[in-house]
Amino acid sequence: MAPVIVDAAVYHDGTRTEVDCADQDYAALRARARECGGFVWVGLHEPAPEELTAVAEAFDLHPLAVEDAVKAHQRPKLERYEHGLFLVLKTLWYVDAEDAVETGEVSLFIGPDFVVTVRHGHGLDLGPARSFLESSEQVLTHGPSSVVYAVCDRVVDGYVSVVGELQVDVDEVEESVLSPARTNDSVRIYTLKREIAEVRRAVQPLREPLHRFSEGAVSGIDAEAGPFFRDVLDHLSRTADLVDNLDGLLSTAFDVHVARIQLQQNDDMRKISAGAALVVVPTLIAGVYGMNFEHMPELGWALGYPFALLVMAAASGGLWWLFRRSGWW
Amino acid sequence: MAPVIVDAAVYHDGTRTEVDCADQDYAALRARARECGGFVWVGLHEPAPEELTAVAEAFDLHPLAVEDAVKAHQRPKLERYEHGLFLVLKTLWYVDAEDAVETGEVSLFIGPDFVVTVRHGHGLDLGPARSFLESSEQVLTHGPSSVVYAVCDRVVDGYVSVVGELQVDVDEVEESVLSPARTNDSVRIYTLKREIAEVRRAVQPLREPLHRFSEGAVSGIDAEAGPFFRDVLDHLSRTADLVDNLDGLLSTAFDVHVARIQLQQNDDMRKISAGAALVVVPTLIAGVYGMNFEHMPELGWALGYPFALLVMAAASGGLWWLFRRSGWW
Amino acid sequence: MAPVIVDAAVYHDGTRTEVDCADQDYAALRARARECGGFVWVGLHEPAPEELTAVAEAFDLHPLAVEDAVKAHQRPKLERYEHGLFLVLKTLWYVDAEDAVETGEVSLFIGPDFVVTVRHGHGLDLGPARSFLESSEQVLTHGPSSVVYAVCDRVVDGYVSVVGELQVDVDEVEESVLSPARTNDSVRIYTLKREIAEVRRAVQPLREPLHRFSEGAVSGIDAEAGPFFRDVLDHLSRTADLVDNLDGLLSTAFDVHVARIQLQQNDDMRKISAGAALVVVPTLIAGVYGMNFEHMPELGWALGYPFALLVMAAASGGLWWLFRRSGWW
Amino acid sequence: MAPVIVDAAVYHDGTRTEVDCADQDYAALRARARECGGFVWVGLHEPAPEELTAVAEAFDLHPLAVEDAVKAHQRPKLERYEHGLFLVLKTLWYVDAEDAVETGEVSLFIGPDFVVTVRHGHGLDLGPARSFLESSEQVLTHGPSSVVYAVCDRVVDGYVSVVGELQVDVDEVEESVLSPARTNDSVRIYTLKREIAEVRRAVQPLREPLHRFSEGAVSGIDAEAGPFFRDVLDHLSRTADLVDNLDGLLSTAFDVHVARIQLQQNDDMRKISAGAALVVVPTLIAGVYGMNFEHMPELGWALGYPFALLVMAAASGGLWWLFRRSGWW
Amino acid sequence: MAPVIVDAAVYHDGTRTEVDCADQDYAALRARARECGGFVWVGLHEPAPEELTAVAEAFDLHPLAVEDAVKAHQRPKLERYEHGLFLVLKTLWYVDAEDAVETGEVSLFIGPDFVVTVRHGHGLDLGPARSFLESSEQVLTHGPSSVVYAVCDRVVDGYVSVVGELQVDVDEVEESVLSPARTNDSVRIYTLKREIAEVRRAVQPLREPLHRFSEGAVSGIDAEAGPFFRDVLDHLSRTADLVDNLDGLLSTAFDVHVARIQLQQNDDMRKISAGAALVVVPTLIAGVYGMNFEHMPELGWALGYPFALLVMAAASGGLWWLFRRSGWW
Repeated sequence: MAPVIVDAAVYHDGTRTEVDCADQDYAALRARARECGGFVWVGLHEPAPEELTAVAEAFDLHPLAVEDAVKAHQRPKLERYEHGLFLVLKTLWYVDAEDAVETGEVSLFIGPDFVVTVRHGHGLDLGPARSFLESSEQVLTHGPSSVVYAVCDRVVDGYVSVVGELQVDVDEVEESVLSPARTNDSVRIYTLKREIAEVRRAVQPLREPLHRFSEGAVSGIDAEAGPFFRDVLDHLSRTADLVDNLDGLLSTAFDVHVARIQLQQNDDMRKISAGAALVVVPTLIAGVYGMNFEHMPELGWALGYPFALLVMAAASGGLWWLFRRSGWW
Repeated sequence: MAPVIVDAAVYHDGTRTEVDCADQDYAALRARARECGGFVWVGLHEPAPEELTAVAEAFDLHPLAVEDAVKAHQRPKLERYEHGLFLVLKTLWYVDAEDAVETGEVSLFIGPDFVVTVRHGHGLDLGPARSFLESSEQVLTHGPSSVVYAVCDRVVDGYVSVVGELQVDVDEVEESVLSPARTNDSVRIYTLKREIAEVRRAVQPLREPLHRFSEGAVSGIDAEAGPFFRDVLDHLSRTADLVDNLDGLLSTAFDVHVARIQLQQNDDMRKISAGAALVVVPTLIAGVYGMNFEHMPELGWALGYPFALLVMAAASGGLWWLFRRSGWW
Repeated sequence: MAPVIVDAAVYHDGTRTEVDCADQDYAALRARARECGGFVWVGLHEPAPEELTAVAEAFDLHPLAVEDAVKAHQRPKLERYEHGLFLVLKTLWYVDAEDAVETGEVSLFIGPDFVVTVRHGHGLDLGPARSFLESSEQVLTHGPSSVVYAVCDRVVDGYVSVVGELQVDVDEVEESVLSPARTNDSVRIYTLKREIAEVRRAVQPLREPLHRFSEGAVSGIDAEAGPFFRDVLDHLSRTADLVDNLDGLLSTAFDVHVARIQLQQNDDMRKISAGAALVVVPTLIAGVYGMNFEHMPELGWALGYPFALLVMAAASGGLWWLFRRSGWW
Repeated sequence: MAPVIVDAAVYHDGTRTEVDCADQDYAALRARARECGGFVWVGLHEPAPEELTAVAEAFDLHPLAVEDAVKAHQRPKLERYEHGLFLVLKTLWYVDAEDAVETGEVSLFIGPDFVVTVRHGHGLDLGPARSFLESSEQVLTHGPSSVVYAVCDRVVDGYVSVVGELQVDVDEVEESVLSPARTNDSVRIYTLKREIAEVRRAVQPLREPLHRFSEGAVSGIDAEAGPFFRDVLDHLSRTADLVDNLDGLLSTAFDVHVARIQLQQNDDMRKISAGAALVVVPTLIAGVYGMNFEHMPELGWALGYPFALLVMAAASGGLWWLFRRSGWW
Repeated sequence: MAPVIVDAAVYHDGTRTEVDCADQDYAALRARARECGGFVWVGLHEPAPEELTAVAEAFDLHPLAVEDAVKAHQRPKLERYEHGLFLVLKTLWYVDAEDAVETGEVSLFIGPDFVVTVRHGHGLDLGPARSFLESSEQVLTHGPSSVVYAVCDRVVDGYVSVVGELQVDVDEVEESVLSPARTNDSVRIYTLKREIAEVRRAVQPLREPLHRFSEGAVSGIDAEAGPFFRDVLDHLSRTADLVDNLDGLLSTAFDVHVARIQLQQNDDMRKISAGAALVVVPTLIAGVYGMNFEHMPELGWALGYPFALLVMAAASGGLWWLFRRSGWW
């Protein structure tokens, strides 16, 4: 099983500082950070309520926010509490094996000298965000805001790659719908629309907080870091546009699919009818020569039988040629 | 029959105070509350007009608001009158026996030293709200606002659980629509859409008042209680999102259902035609050997009859194999 | 024919004052009202242009407004002219005999010492509004504003009752659509949607003026009368909500209706095909025994004929049982 | 061919002033107008670029605006340039012969002492606007603004009458769609929707400028003339409402049309099947008596043949009665 | 292969200045421009990252903006950085050979003494923009803003011509849909809708920056150049309107197409059934005369056979005439 405390470290002056205390000794970590004018980043993964309580005590986290971070299944949101900010993000990743989008959640408690990140779900770990920060001294000097940036960037990159995968799926559906083959795409389209709605629910509510970060309008987030957030917002907006576009394309593709079913039904009906004609007309001819009139010259002909068969074949053949020409076959 | 006065009590300093007067002696209750700097909470259930009039006199309630509280069937709304606020909420609960959402109503008259709640409908009683408050000293110290909070929280929890049930219903519909079985889901979808519209009518108009409460922008509601209302608003917003999502899913599911009907019709048509061919072709062969030509060699063969039957069977079998291969059967 | 001048009276101190001049002596009426500090309410019904001109002269009405009041077929609107306000309302009533909504119009010229109401259409007379006012001394003390309130209240009550009738119609359509019977509901739905659009055109533009009246934001309308207008606005908003809901239900009901037609067509097709099979298979059997082979043992059997008939019946019966079991019949 | 300069005149003190210079001597006309404190109104119809250039020089018109007035195919818009305003209106008229809406354009250059109107298209000439003004001294005293008003009024009256014609067309379509006859209304609906979109494109962008004129918020347009523009805006708003309503009706009518096609197809299918049954069942009976069993008592009956025909007729008749009763025929 | 540096020149006083340094000596170019109070315009086409880095150094371009200009696939946007503005435009052109819209991108770095344009994609080169500027001394005096104008104008002209081509395509689709011929337009409509969505994604986000330029609200863009940008914005708005209109027409055309398929299916079904009747009825007659009754007078007639054939032909002919008359054929 993955550990609950993924990592806990003190950063100052743009670098990670070695501290001589255990990961879970949050109070000591915080004291150390305050001492040197830096900040702590504690990263947790699906902590039990009591584990989060210990963290909450060390960093004075608000009980309502802590409750939200335990329960997961929140909407993306930014809230201000007395001692800091509380930001919730939805994480998304694509599981190739199932062609499905899965969702998780990251909650961030942001204070002047600490960030606590609580992650739910197994995909999209925050390791790359931490690595990126530890290798970008200049970004890291923005303090806790830099962690917020790195996490948002990581999460939004997740959106971008999920939308990339969905794009591929939509292209496949489109190809299938537009191909002349007889396909049943409605289930696929339904599932994709459902996933797109899920992506939209993650993406949409994040625009407002990111916009405010990028304008430096949130106290507690470094206004100097605005351009970084603007960059993330830009990716987010592009993602939102693409998602809207995919949804529109799927709707149109669905309509085309339905039109196609109807067209195929009409084609099938005409083909079937043409086929039926090829059998029904000779049947009529056979019926004629099955009549019991005493005076039917053909019946006595030596070649009457082959002649009748020929007439039948000619009728069928003629009809076939006619249907062929008029495009019914 | 349930009593009209569900409970009437004086609260101060965060606890319930014992008073030595009858429940319906509102004036005495109010005097007692004023005396100790506390407030009264009178809870009524479907009172007759004259019963409400007695309450209205004791608490100086505005006649127009009283009229609204008697009639029920109001929209959720917040109104300010000279002597206080008037808040109307729609209550929702799910009746398992009928798979249906039912609605009731709670009206609150909010003054500086009293809250009068008037409930209509048999579901979602306010008992749990009162119990919660009486066990949460700290919340109760916010005075009448705490009652507003507790009632809103109880009502919104009702929405959350109703939406949970609807989610289950939508999942069932979805499964039914996407299954290859021949189903008629349109009635079910219609009923669900109707219920979702009902939930939306309860949820939507409540956002504005709760938003204003959470911002401390309503005089008469304690600004300190803002975070509590923000929490309720958060649940409400999530509910609203889910409801919109369910509605969208149902619409798409309906479209898929219709596409499916068409696809099935086409499949059926082809299956039927293939079946018809299996009968019509042998009929033609029988017709041929029913012709009365004098010179038909097969007719004289000793094994002519079994041979003809074999030809018929072979024709049907061949067609069957052909249709099978082309997916028509 | 109904008289053009329905009533003309002077009100002051909350009661109707007897005056000793003819109804159409507007100048005298106005002078009398000014004298006692009261106001005149002249109620007209479909006046000819020249009749309205006399009124316009006595009360200094603006020519453009007068022209609008003569022509009818205006949108609901509130306009300010130099000497007062001009309000146009659409009236609605339900004609049971035709199951149809009919529309009329009321124009109000509002001055500091007079109200002139001009009504078009035969339904929804303003008599009840006048009676209500004359029996409500306290309301009447708000001067011309009280007439505006009483008229708006009467008109909006008309909307409420029309929407109630439409609700009944929609319930009927819903029942018809969801019933398994073979119904043609599209014409009914079309007509209802058309009427709902008409109601909406009456309701929607009235919200703005009523909202401004209820906030006391219109000079010329007594701000003290705000709560009355808020009450009317409340009814109007509820009506608007209901209308939107009915429209949505009708749209969904229509979609269900269409899906139902398709489903029925598919059912019919399968039933018909099953029926055809019951005839076509015995025909094949008859064809077989109609063949002219010399050696067909059955033909010589004494019970050959009944045997053949039995085989035919058995084939039909077996198919019937098969179709029955698979739900095709 | 119509002349390019339709009319050019100086107005002051509310009347047309006789001037002794040629129509195209714009500089002289303007000098004359300035002299007497009046203004010039030059009306042009589809001028060549060089003709417009002469005007532009005399009145200091901005080159970009002039270019727009030459090219036509602009959107309705109001623009401010250094020396005045530039207003573009779309004109609409209905050509009965083709049941079609045609569009033209009017550009107005508005300065303190002149108005230049440039009209494109052959319908809706501005003659009536000029006549109206020349007979309305009081309106004309508002200077160039009065020309703007008269032109807007004329153009919007054109919209009103076009929408009236479209209303008639929509009523026809509605009647056709709701009639039980077998009609193909989709082309008609498409064409009407297209024309309605065209009307909307003319109407919609004009609301903003007219609203601003009516509020006296545009320097260069006389604030005193506000009520006139409010009147025009009122007509425009009503037109916009009607157009939206017609569009909605057409959409619903189209849906009803499609539902009707499906219903008819189902009816047809059942009628056809019933018809087929009337032939197929006697065929089976004929087949039975065409069997070659040696022992078939009926075959020897003297009245066997008429009896068989009777059985056939009875079978067909019985089926016919059955189908009739169940509404299939 | 096209060169990366398309052109690099210094402009001042409205004309191009000859400089004696290499194109890629950006520092020298910039120094020269500063010296004479002019500006440099460097035009690049799909530069490699390292080539852009050299430019970035010479003009102090912000790394995030440079990254965006390298990667392409941005949304249209305007961003402010410390040393200037960064504008991204989508370019569109129509490839006749494929009936397809292709997209490229232009990024502009705008400083007080330079403009760097980076173009991606092979269509819509900026040569004409440069030529236009170099021949319009007066425009060029607006400095870097004039380049922004010229590029925007060129790009928006590209939109206009693409929309013109799409208009032609939509007209074709419309004609095809409304024609009585049996067509399959859904794929074409899908493709066009997809392209229209692409155009919209290019056009929509550009409105905001152009609007702000035209109002002179962006520091770094010459407010005097406002009218130029208003002109471009005007074209853009017209394009956006047309695109919305085309999209709406396509949606309606699609609905008509689907209705048409259904109508055709119904027509086909009736035609087929009528055709079947022409065969099935004679078959019944043949069956009748194929019965083996001993006493069938017609069988002994000398002209029995021709008579039977005549009856068959008459039956078919009569049916044919009947179907013809009722419009089934």
